[in-house]
Amino acid sequence: MKKHSEQALAELGARIRQTRLARGYSQDELADLCGMHRTYIGSVERGERNFSVLNLLKIVKALDVSVNALFGDEKPSD
Amino acid sequence: MKKHSEQALAELGARIRQTRLARGYSQDELADLCGMHRTYIGSVERGERNFSVLNLLKIVKALDVSVNALFGDEKPSD
Repeated sequence: MKKHSEQALAELGARIRQTRLARGYSQDELADLCGMHRTYIGSVERGERNFSVLNLLKIVKALDVSVNALFGDEKPSD
Repeated sequence: MKKHSEQALAELGARIRQTRLARGYSQDELADLCGMHRTYIGSVERGERNFSVLNLLKIVKALDVSVNALFGDEKPSD
């Protein structure tokens, strides 16, 4: 992967981790809510996975967060 | 794929298509901006692909749109 892509995934993963911790969930608990394995959540949080939009939606729903917040993009939509 | 997932991808694809048309881009033009093939953009717009977050970011950047707008989620972030 290109540096830019690695950086984008790392930032996304860091925001997921930050939000999970703010919600007081362990990786195990978030994994259960998403129907994923704890190690999968771990690799997402470390930015090691270019995961799919459906898994993104599962994580967003489990964390009750806006997609924009996870992407650090608070620009108002058109 | 489950019905719910198909529906989510179809809605996401429809919003990408809607935004592309609002920007006045053809599928070819958007594909060029994203470094993808036109047929790939077509399948994304028809909700046939559970594509990756990096490709989502490319599309978001090319369309100059917020991620929330594409997901139809305008809830303010925490």
